[in-house]
Amino acid sequence: MRRLTREDIKKWKTSRQEDTSDIQGKVNDIVSGVRRRGDAAVKEYTEKFDGISLSDFRVTREEISDAYESLSGKYLDIIQEAAGNIRRFHEKQLPSSWFDTSQDGSMLGQKYTPIDKAGVYVPGGTAAYPSSVMMNIIPAQVAGVERIAMVTPPGTNGRVPIGVLATAQILGVTEIYKIGGAQAIAALAYGTETIPAVDKITGPGNMFVALAKKQVFGDVDIDMIAGPSEIAVLCDHTARAGEVAADLLSQAEHDERSSAVCITTSRQLADDLDREVKEQLKQLPRKNIAEASINFFGGTVVVDTMTEAVDTVNEFAPEHLEVMTENPYEQLGAIRHAGAIFLGPYSSEPVGDYFAGPNHVLPTSGTARFSSPLNVHDFMKKSSVISYSAAAWHRNVDKIASFARLEDLEGHARAVEKRKERFDD
Amino acid sequence: MRRLTREDIKKWKTSRQEDTSDIQGKVNDIVSGVRRRGDAAVKEYTEKFDGISLSDFRVTREEISDAYESLSGKYLDIIQEAAGNIRRFHEKQLPSSWFDTSQDGSMLGQKYTPIDKAGVYVPGGTAAYPSSVMMNIIPAQVAGVERIAMVTPPGTNGRVPIGVLATAQILGVTEIYKIGGAQAIAALAYGTETIPAVDKITGPGNMFVALAKKQVFGDVDIDMIAGPSEIAVLCDHTARAGEVAADLLSQAEHDERSSAVCITTSRQLADDLDREVKEQLKQLPRKNIAEASINFFGGTVVVDTMTEAVDTVNEFAPEHLEVMTENPYEQLGAIRHAGAIFLGPYSSEPVGDYFAGPNHVLPTSGTARFSSPLNVHDFMKKSSVISYSAAAWHRNVDKIASFARLEDLEGHARAVEKRKERFDD
Repeated sequence: MRRLTREDIKKWKTSRQEDTSDIQGKVNDIVSGVRRRGDAAVKEYTEKFDGISLSDFRVTREEISDAYESLSGKYLDIIQEAAGNIRRFHEKQLPSSWFDTSQDGSMLGQKYTPIDKAGVYVPGGTAAYPSSVMMNIIPAQVAGVERIAMVTPPGTNGRVPIGVLATAQILGVTEIYKIGGAQAIAALAYGTETIPAVDKITGPGNMFVALAKKQVFGDVDIDMIAGPSEIAVLCDHTARAGEVAADLLSQAEHDERSSAVCITTSRQLADDLDREVKEQLKQLPRKNIAEASINFFGGTVVVDTMTEAVDTVNEFAPEHLEVMTENPYEQLGAIRHAGAIFLGPYSSEPVGDYFAGPNHVLPTSGTARFSSPLNVHDFMKKSSVISYSAAAWHRNVDKIASFARLEDLEGHARAVEKRKERFDD
Repeated sequence: MRRLTREDIKKWKTSRQEDTSDIQGKVNDIVSGVRRRGDAAVKEYTEKFDGISLSDFRVTREEISDAYESLSGKYLDIIQEAAGNIRRFHEKQLPSSWFDTSQDGSMLGQKYTPIDKAGVYVPGGTAAYPSSVMMNIIPAQVAGVERIAMVTPPGTNGRVPIGVLATAQILGVTEIYKIGGAQAIAALAYGTETIPAVDKITGPGNMFVALAKKQVFGDVDIDMIAGPSEIAVLCDHTARAGEVAADLLSQAEHDERSSAVCITTSRQLADDLDREVKEQLKQLPRKNIAEASINFFGGTVVVDTMTEAVDTVNEFAPEHLEVMTENPYEQLGAIRHAGAIFLGPYSSEPVGDYFAGPNHVLPTSGTARFSSPLNVHDFMKKSSVISYSAAAWHRNVDKIASFARLEDLEGHARAVEKRKERFDD
């Protein structure tokens, strides 16, 4: 593991912004193709990119129940239990509409309403992720979204992995389409002859998916533009190098562009970590990916004080942050920017990926500065409610009209003043 | 006023999506110019688009206090009182970090943290809007954002309108730059020699501003992509046509592309409204704009039942919705999509623009289907917190490792299993 400085971490933030202009043009063509030609375009792009010609994108009820039947009971039980944990954690996020009344009879408030229709993108490719299905679908269900459509790219055999379909069955999701990439995002955003449009699209994907989401943003809502995964481990001399190494590698194995950084006050730990990473890498099945990722942006920052260590964490704003210090709760208050914070030695990052309850769809590439884990609020929206009483109007009508005239909007002033005629009668 | 059908309303939603590809190219050039060349590019674009050559973009403390001194005390008092109302309403939105503990010693939760740095765009042009300053700045202040930078285009005299600066002074905002358009958005997103970058940009602007915000989205967060204003008035026979007309015109006077729609169960009201709109239009200073807007997409939908009326409202998803019916609270539950809902005859829309407390930055163009008024949550983000106990780890380690292996991520399984060595010692 390289030794990194705080300056490296700061520079990393800006260097992570990729130049995507060459892919952007292709993505725009796909999006406008689907928007203009609907299913025909989706079919063509699916042939081109997924290597399979489909006459019908919709996954049948039989395919879903067959998948469920063929997954072993052991896995079904684990998925079921994990889904229960995730549902419980997300139910605690449910907001209430609220109002505030005044003596004068006025009422002000905020009304929460779920969105009507959500589309969820579940990545395909090398790894089929039942956990992605849970993490995207459950918050939408808890929010009360009525229609949830799931899209996922088909394999070259025209099928969706059974783990993904079995999870959908467990969650009660039945509207699933075998489409992926930018064409899937465009189909969800604008609708086709067979795929009705949705109001919001969530879920991670490759660069085509990310750029397509950005392209349709505004016409529909999106969750965030996901990049490669990161982990930072903040630790002192009490941490075990073997555990730190294993946790760093668990993110490094995701993608060659993932990053895994240890930030520590212990020089000894940094040295031990080097050996451990080297050792554990040898036996890892996804060794090549993990090694490339560690070389791409992995390393250790050794600092003198815990304050400096936490400042470095905030500058990195990692997607995942593990805190393995003498008393991790003491660092919690000073940590400002991290997608998910794992406290103590037993909170290994995969605990959160699959099972504990919080969402694993997290802000990447430093966007934890301004973004949140996927959550129930993402599938709801607020409406302001204003119920002004006659008394409140009386007291404030002249001030409101003056304000409107200060902004040169006479029509606004006249609207609020129009009510004076009620008292001329 | 035209008679519209529900079909017209539905078609309107899609027809509002504009083709912006010709402007997009220009905006991309401006954004990349500022990103590459910093202040020099901002200076050039300000000369080109705002017609003024500035050596320093920063508004001085004297300019701010001079503006404050020169605005009449009457206006200062009204702004002060409005700001107090807005602050109180937004303080009620402040979320708390929360946690949930288990018997086994685990703790799960969500930590709320304000973002560090926000940039607020205040439009210039024909109308200087002190209310926009309040509506963007106050939620950020209530959230606890430490650095708030405001940008607003200079007039050809190189100055910012006194109403805007006086409002900034009242709110205690001191970092103000005389820049506008796409160049202002790029400067806030990527920083220049004199303007440090921010994490999130909010506030409405013209098409250049909207497209620049979309362009930088992902590198920073943005609030939403704002379009022209809309109002819908949902009413029955109890509404007064004169008041409905005045309120419709208050939105129509904003922009030739605003829309103002009445949805009613009363044919009589629809007829009276035609006369009222015609009459009131005659004497409106911004008559030309309001008339163009009414012709662009204004009209009345007459339906048979209140249920149908509310369904039509939801299909329109208006930015502003007034409900002037016999008992407006009875409709509130069925209204799903509206930015702000004004109940009863005294809740004329300008009440919310300036004074009552809720935000006037609202989702436009049907985006109330998935977006919210600007609010305190927009300036905060969440981090998940996972503190797994040894007992919880013991109970679940094998399940978590199995799940990881189901997803073919051996490194994940090994990370969580690595803790077993603690018990081998």
